[in-house]
Amino acid sequence: MTSVPTYAHPLSALSIDETSSAAEPAKKDLIKFLNLEHASQLTPETPRPPRQATVHHVVVEGNNATKSIEAVVDLAKREQVWEKVVDTNVHPSFTLHELEETVKICKSSSLLQSQIDALSLPEGFEAVVEPWPYGGLDVSVATGGENDSFLPQARSKGVIDHCRPTEYVPELLDTKMRDDLKELNVIQPNGASFSVTDDSLVEWQKWRMRVSFNPREGAVVHDVLYDGRSILYRLSISDMTVPYADPRNPFHRKQAFDFGDGGIGHCANNLELGCDCLGVIKYFDGVLNRPDGTAHASRNVICLHEQDNGIGWKHTNWRTNRAVVTRRRELVIQFILTVANYEYVFNYKFDQAGGIAVETRATGILSAVNIDPGKKAPWGNIVSPGVQDQNHQHIFCVRIDPAIDGHENTLVQQESLPLQIDERTNPNGNAYNMQETPITTSIGLDAAPRNARLFKIQNLNKKNPVSGQPVGYKIVPPPTQLLLADRTSRQAQRALFAQHHVWVTKYKDDELYAGGRYTLQSTVETEGVADAAARCDDVLQEDIVVWSVFGLTHNPRVEDWPVMPVETIQLHMTPVDFFSANPALDVPSNRNLTSEYAGIDGEATVEGGDRRAACCE
Amino acid sequence: MTSVPTYAHPLSALSIDETSSAAEPAKKDLIKFLNLEHASQLTPETPRPPRQATVHHVVVEGNNATKSIEAVVDLAKREQVWEKVVDTNVHPSFTLHELEETVKICKSSSLLQSQIDALSLPEGFEAVVEPWPYGGLDVSVATGGENDSFLPQARSKGVIDHCRPTEYVPELLDTKMRDDLKELNVIQPNGASFSVTDDSLVEWQKWRMRVSFNPREGAVVHDVLYDGRSILYRLSISDMTVPYADPRNPFHRKQAFDFGDGGIGHCANNLELGCDCLGVIKYFDGVLNRPDGTAHASRNVICLHEQDNGIGWKHTNWRTNRAVVTRRRELVIQFILTVANYEYVFNYKFDQAGGIAVETRATGILSAVNIDPGKKAPWGNIVSPGVQDQNHQHIFCVRIDPAIDGHENTLVQQESLPLQIDERTNPNGNAYNMQETPITTSIGLDAAPRNARLFKIQNLNKKNPVSGQPVGYKIVPPPTQLLLADRTSRQAQRALFAQHHVWVTKYKDDELYAGGRYTLQSTVETEGVADAAARCDDVLQEDIVVWSVFGLTHNPRVEDWPVMPVETIQLHMTPVDFFSANPALDVPSNRNLTSEYAGIDGEATVEGGDRRAACCE
Repeated sequence: MTSVPTYAHPLSALSIDETSSAAEPAKKDLIKFLNLEHASQLTPETPRPPRQATVHHVVVEGNNATKSIEAVVDLAKREQVWEKVVDTNVHPSFTLHELEETVKICKSSSLLQSQIDALSLPEGFEAVVEPWPYGGLDVSVATGGENDSFLPQARSKGVIDHCRPTEYVPELLDTKMRDDLKELNVIQPNGASFSVTDDSLVEWQKWRMRVSFNPREGAVVHDVLYDGRSILYRLSISDMTVPYADPRNPFHRKQAFDFGDGGIGHCANNLELGCDCLGVIKYFDGVLNRPDGTAHASRNVICLHEQDNGIGWKHTNWRTNRAVVTRRRELVIQFILTVANYEYVFNYKFDQAGGIAVETRATGILSAVNIDPGKKAPWGNIVSPGVQDQNHQHIFCVRIDPAIDGHENTLVQQESLPLQIDERTNPNGNAYNMQETPITTSIGLDAAPRNARLFKIQNLNKKNPVSGQPVGYKIVPPPTQLLLADRTSRQAQRALFAQHHVWVTKYKDDELYAGGRYTLQSTVETEGVADAAARCDDVLQEDIVVWSVFGLTHNPRVEDWPVMPVETIQLHMTPVDFFSANPALDVPSNRNLTSEYAGIDGEATVEGGDRRAACCE
Repeated sequence: MTSVPTYAHPLSALSIDETSSAAEPAKKDLIKFLNLEHASQLTPETPRPPRQATVHHVVVEGNNATKSIEAVVDLAKREQVWEKVVDTNVHPSFTLHELEETVKICKSSSLLQSQIDALSLPEGFEAVVEPWPYGGLDVSVATGGENDSFLPQARSKGVIDHCRPTEYVPELLDTKMRDDLKELNVIQPNGASFSVTDDSLVEWQKWRMRVSFNPREGAVVHDVLYDGRSILYRLSISDMTVPYADPRNPFHRKQAFDFGDGGIGHCANNLELGCDCLGVIKYFDGVLNRPDGTAHASRNVICLHEQDNGIGWKHTNWRTNRAVVTRRRELVIQFILTVANYEYVFNYKFDQAGGIAVETRATGILSAVNIDPGKKAPWGNIVSPGVQDQNHQHIFCVRIDPAIDGHENTLVQQESLPLQIDERTNPNGNAYNMQETPITTSIGLDAAPRNARLFKIQNLNKKNPVSGQPVGYKIVPPPTQLLLADRTSRQAQRALFAQHHVWVTKYKDDELYAGGRYTLQSTVETEGVADAAARCDDVLQEDIVVWSVFGLTHNPRVEDWPVMPVETIQLHMTPVDFFSANPALDVPSNRNLTSEYAGIDGEATVEGGDRRAACCE
């Protein structure tokens, strides 16, 4: 915590010198600054919002942690400006160091060692401890939780005799690797079309945004503008819960909250050129803390690149036979997490037609348990002899802090509904009713795909000059299954956010985490989105936040073993009457001159003649 | 219809010499042949299924069409083997020639000309006739259909005075085109990884399939095997309906059936290198008929290429820090249709983990009507001054004829459902119930995403050696809105297939079209999937067909004008306990050596050092 750069942008993540997790400036302060910046009116004299950091620390006396403290430090003034002693029934995030300590303590336990010895494992077999931040201890949910018949496995000799080794690392596989996959390269001879200046400012194809990284959420996107018009104040992956459905004690407590438990930033992969994306790639480092509080740069935790995603728009005029076709280029901000056994790939994507997408890919190794030969269980599938993958869910929450042409926004539900036959309005039964309902009070709402339910985030003060409708963006909430666990269960109580597909709340500084501020060993979601919605704030033409919840019920397949092919979910935000025409109309319709004809063996051949520069004239 | 090649594969589309639309061999004959082929036991002496063609023709006497005939011709024997006089209340597909004739007849109409003259259009303004195959004439649906208050537009002078010209062709736009989009090339220095032999046989990454093209369905995929194991007998886009919701006469009859009305093959774009996909591309020609019945090759109606779709699977072992990451390469069979104003891009995609996807992209120009200044209407949006795009739906049907390790297959519905708390089975409320229900009788079924409902196509006779479950593939039906029009309406009656998300029927030769055999000016779906399901056939361990229905309720945005950015829907077929492990485990984890670091301006820089060939060792 030495020198503080005088002009670090308020949205730049904290530097190593500044340490710890950034406390973002209060929105009212930051908006003032951003408005001046958007108007190109920043000067060296413009007052900056105070540069602050959030500090979590635990006071240890002897061998006992006596107090857990959260504080905000003003870095310029070098003083603490706020402090809170964390309630004793919650826990701040663990550090990876604590996991390592846990493993050490377990390994040195003679009780554990004697249990392992009793298994009579084969020579050279190493039993490893897999640390997992389970939910809080049982109190009273159900007595059956301690019922012995629900213990996960009878401990006995030879429990792995029926198992077979599994491997996925190429040099250890005895399978022959495919040798018929030919090279596919993405070449950008003039470089990428984006620029990254001022550490965090990304500009690409009329888009302009800030990218930052913090230990809890990983990559965050701020202050998103298109062609000078404001769309989002902040976009982040807010939370995730992964509850397991094995009813046996202690698996009812097996429920990961990877963002809150240990901080997803700490799990971010250090990406490598040529491995995690193709083309010309810009990497961003992130600042993380060591267990002693000192800061270090973690290399390449975010990558930024462009990709081609097929046809963007096309039309052939059948009267003239003139075709115009454009490609759909996308800008991708990617970060990848390894949370012990499992991987998540998160992408923020921006396209040339004003669209924004958040994509999650789940991969890695499923969490497995041992199962006796010949047995089956309704809560999982056998994916390898003696190996049972437990049924589970992944439920994500994306936090959208919109700023559609300003900060006074409204969430409007749209449905397309059948319309009764009626002589005057629907004589032939083909009409339907497009119904729009502005949401007035903070609340949790659900997807209804049979009604084509979608949600517009609109600025009711600003009308589209062509249609006369309020300018806006829409999201079609992915209508995925919500949390299955019983409402009264520990799992459901810890993840109240996972009870609805869409939440709308009134903005409040530092209210960022759908599953609650403290998830580690939690027993109930606290200060999460459900609490925020329960304030019943007025959200009509207010500074609102929209939370999108979606997920995946994962009943494992044999194909998911030993490492699973990606399962992908996308959330789309699409302009609806925000622009005055297709914003991608000015994307050039250039012919790609490096494409080649394939012969019967797939090799490039010289075939076909004329190749003009424009497509399909 | 001259020489017939002795050894044309039964699944090769008809050649020019063979003419007309292919009549595929009867399944029982073709299976015999394919089984021998799969076992490499074909010889020149192996009997071939008869090579046949379907012929539609109309008998014209004087100026009157007196009869419409459908016939099957045996090409080797040069004789007609089957004939049917088509019922007078249905019509075979029109030819594009007929549309052109329609335009000519309209243009020469003095009545139409006098109506156009009455509009006093500006000097040099050309009114064009847009031919549309509307649904059959009104009979009795509702008297209001002929109500004058529902006439689309009061005809008066100056109806376009408030309109403004719109353009999308680059050289006619007055907007500056983007000049900051840098080249992105897909380079395959050793060619593509596929081969295409025997005209129609595509082999790629353990996949093997036949590709054909016909005038009604466009590209069709047959006899799909992975690593020698049969998965699909046939995969096609079966049908599509596009009903409009403008209640005014005659728009209640505006409902396209682009596959059945004129044949989608006739609308297929002649694809151009460097315009419709990137990389090394194989093109297929298709054979189409001229109005006089003669055949010609339509160039490049299908393209075949590979694409990179990000990370395929990844895991980092946190104990060793060894990461393994593979890319997800896909094989894409693409065809693109222009149906007058509108475009559809259809992709069949195959990945390295045994997955199959069907993707539809909708683009092109929305069908618009004129609207008076200052007016609004609940059935559309104003996308340009005086231009109203009408609300409508696109509902597609993909026909899946499975052959999961053989032809005796079963559709099994799976749901994940809440489970009551119970001392014995679910003491802590975290367990859920995975319920599987085999479908025994042909029927239409619906999506239920809140229950994570999915459908497995299983071979109940064959168990996965690891899990003991039947081998299968699953589809998660996209839970999109079904047809909105009133059940009694002409629109709904014409598209009974659009009442359910999934249909399962017993296989019957030549039963290919979900919306019925004759859709042109139809009044009710006939010989479509609803009729097939109504047979109440036994479908448990039978030769079944699965039909997946999904779509898009399109309430137009200003951004959809004048040509809309693609709207994409995907249907995924994924192996579930079909393989004994992740089938992509042997995909090499090679580092891409042509990727480069981007500097702050996006240009490639020499930064970072060591680049080993394998990823992340």
